[in-house]
Amino acid sequence: MTTTLTRSLAESVQVTRTAARTLAKLPTQAKDAALEAIAIALEQNGDRILQANQKDVEAAKSAQLPIAILNRLKLDRNKLASMVAGVRDMVRLAEPVGITQIHRELDTGLTLERITCPLGVVGVIFEARPDAVSQIAALAIKSGNGVILKGGSEAVNSCEAIVAVIHQALKEAEIGKELSVSPDAIQLLTTRAETLAILQMDSLIDLIIPRGSNQFVRYIQENTRIPVLGHAEGICHLYVDASAEIAQAIAIAVDAKAQYPAACNAIETLLVHAAIAANFLPFAVQALQNHGVEVRVCDRTLQIMQQCGGETKELLQATDSDWATEYSDLILAIRIVDSLEEAIAHINTYGSRHTEAIVTQDPNAAATFLSDVDAAGVFHNCSTRFADGFRYGFGAEVGISTQKMPPRGPVGLEGLITYKYRLIGDGHIVASYSGKDAKTFTHKDLT
Amino acid sequence: MTTTLTRSLAESVQVTRTAARTLAKLPTQAKDAALEAIAIALEQNGDRILQANQKDVEAAKSAQLPIAILNRLKLDRNKLASMVAGVRDMVRLAEPVGITQIHRELDTGLTLERITCPLGVVGVIFEARPDAVSQIAALAIKSGNGVILKGGSEAVNSCEAIVAVIHQALKEAEIGKELSVSPDAIQLLTTRAETLAILQMDSLIDLIIPRGSNQFVRYIQENTRIPVLGHAEGICHLYVDASAEIAQAIAIAVDAKAQYPAACNAIETLLVHAAIAANFLPFAVQALQNHGVEVRVCDRTLQIMQQCGGETKELLQATDSDWATEYSDLILAIRIVDSLEEAIAHINTYGSRHTEAIVTQDPNAAATFLSDVDAAGVFHNCSTRFADGFRYGFGAEVGISTQKMPPRGPVGLEGLITYKYRLIGDGHIVASYSGKDAKTFTHKDLT
Repeated sequence: MTTTLTRSLAESVQVTRTAARTLAKLPTQAKDAALEAIAIALEQNGDRILQANQKDVEAAKSAQLPIAILNRLKLDRNKLASMVAGVRDMVRLAEPVGITQIHRELDTGLTLERITCPLGVVGVIFEARPDAVSQIAALAIKSGNGVILKGGSEAVNSCEAIVAVIHQALKEAEIGKELSVSPDAIQLLTTRAETLAILQMDSLIDLIIPRGSNQFVRYIQENTRIPVLGHAEGICHLYVDASAEIAQAIAIAVDAKAQYPAACNAIETLLVHAAIAANFLPFAVQALQNHGVEVRVCDRTLQIMQQCGGETKELLQATDSDWATEYSDLILAIRIVDSLEEAIAHINTYGSRHTEAIVTQDPNAAATFLSDVDAAGVFHNCSTRFADGFRYGFGAEVGISTQKMPPRGPVGLEGLITYKYRLIGDGHIVASYSGKDAKTFTHKDLT
Repeated sequence: MTTTLTRSLAESVQVTRTAARTLAKLPTQAKDAALEAIAIALEQNGDRILQANQKDVEAAKSAQLPIAILNRLKLDRNKLASMVAGVRDMVRLAEPVGITQIHRELDTGLTLERITCPLGVVGVIFEARPDAVSQIAALAIKSGNGVILKGGSEAVNSCEAIVAVIHQALKEAEIGKELSVSPDAIQLLTTRAETLAILQMDSLIDLIIPRGSNQFVRYIQENTRIPVLGHAEGICHLYVDASAEIAQAIAIAVDAKAQYPAACNAIETLLVHAAIAANFLPFAVQALQNHGVEVRVCDRTLQIMQQCGGETKELLQATDSDWATEYSDLILAIRIVDSLEEAIAHINTYGSRHTEAIVTQDPNAAATFLSDVDAAGVFHNCSTRFADGFRYGFGAEVGISTQKMPPRGPVGLEGLITYKYRLIGDGHIVASYSGKDAKTFTHKDLT
């Protein structure tokens, strides 16, 4: 990467930063009008977007990219309709900026407010899926942030077409309006060199959101001083307790593993209490295998499966490394534990603090699990796959965070928002509140 | 540092982690009873603590440590009384754990809750001031966190005595009680090798809070993967607008610089609008100099001061490096700007996003400043020195954060708390909500 690139890129990120400062102050109506203009433009320019996408798809086929990437890359009328609906959903979300979180009189005439505000400029770096572009742009507009977008190189034509449509919509919506969203607030990068360069721009970019594989997220985390919202791993567990209802446990295990195995909230290990293992495992393993799941089992599970002599396929033995592996595929490790405590200890050792579930009819066991398991999501009698911003009712998902500090778990618009403290006085100085004859603070919350 | 040290230290941090898990679940009454027991023990063991402190003070004198360190190190009856009061203040604070932030029906029988919970184990590394020990221990107990404390080597006897008193109080309070705070929840380290070792324990420690000089905080930030709450720099500004009331501006400038110049919320640069400079600066400079402040001025300020020919002492000229310097001392840089916008641009370039203030009678200028300045605190007609957890009414201050993401600014108990999502179902699986005949979510907030 050349110094020239870095310098001109910093200038163009500064353009987005300046546009973001205006965007941050726009009233809800102005932001929502921009979102509706984008939704209409996406509807009207479907052909243009699909044609650009066709180029990417053909190039991907020539390059013999894996079918999974092709599927994520390829747009169609349904995906376009979802993109439009996603932008319109954002209009319905509550305004996240300018919310008063604290309003307190510190003393007569000295008033503190804590007010939500946008972060500034967010860098979103994602792989493949071009439909993410409109969603990210809409999230940025609603939250009052500028955004620097970088899609996967295989989706460059699609991303450029979508951003061109968004820019055109914003340009047209600007005409004759005093308050409008500048197209400069949304900027697309197209080269890897630019991505590497923006990771160093900690004075211009406030948050990086990587969306992609584990290796991709870890690479970003290790190569920037800018805060990163995201998670590198999702090793989730389902624990089937001694008091589980067996049919329910089987249905949840199948859903949590097989409904969409590439998702970070799919389970990688099934823990089973010894007291229920002989009744549960033969049926569960068969159900999982019927859904194409390869199971890797501990010694005790193997014994039980051999004793029951059912029609299960040959079973692989799990090794210690299985407990620490995120397969992201139709593979599941199974381990028998002797107690709830052993299950919790296993999860706290190997889990990535993402989402952990227990199936049990015993309310005490459930309460202990929900309290003692250290994860962003602790679930009882339901599938780990529910850990998702849309399903939680956040309207949109910025990402899922497995860090301990908030924002944690599925993060909606909240992840793009911070706050500032405003203190308004009338010549108040701290010296008046110290030494003898010190004034005291009233600390009275105002409504 | 030897491997043996690291291994045995990890084991003892694990002891604190285990104690913290129990502490996390204690009801408010049990935590408050422990706090009251500590307050009483501190009152009763004042002599023991002061004797230990005397040893540290004598050693510090022999080592000819600077007077500022001696003052922070030395305990007396007043400081002891403040320590006791600080612990009792914690009893009065609202319970931060177990608060329901979200309670939402996702569908019939499928209920989501977001509940606050402690972080786990917090590492607090501080320089000198032994009175910080009781405050940190009290914060940890109230927030349900275990804490690993490391004080400055010059305060080792004092810190050991205070922790011994706290441990004894907790041990006695434990007797005959089912629910109590284990002394293991609070652990003191005494060597630098141990500090370095815990910075690597990212699976055992959830947050590091460094309290000390800029260099100290920056060293911690650069040598751990554990999240760090704190700030390395506090370059704060006061901007005196064209429409400022001059007497008010002078009083605020003196307070913001001279009331406690070593504080991070003291100002380092005074920006003055050109239109008011000739009327304001001669009086302001004299007032500052009367408070022992050395001023370093821009060319235009120098001109004004020479023209007015008052009785000011000789003035140093500021260079570009002054705008980027945190003096933490009785030194102030002064610069004339031609507009509000120029002041804001200066602050957004050189400020460390800590606390920034404007003095003006013009509500529009104030509104623009409060909105466009990028800092945790934006103040109008009051001193930057108010940026403090106690003054904000948070009861106690964990630290001040200059990062953009929350928690930001002065951070109280909130900084030691996170949340988890609990999802309770009755066999709910995600497959039911996809494909054709997909069920829809109700997303109904419950009271």
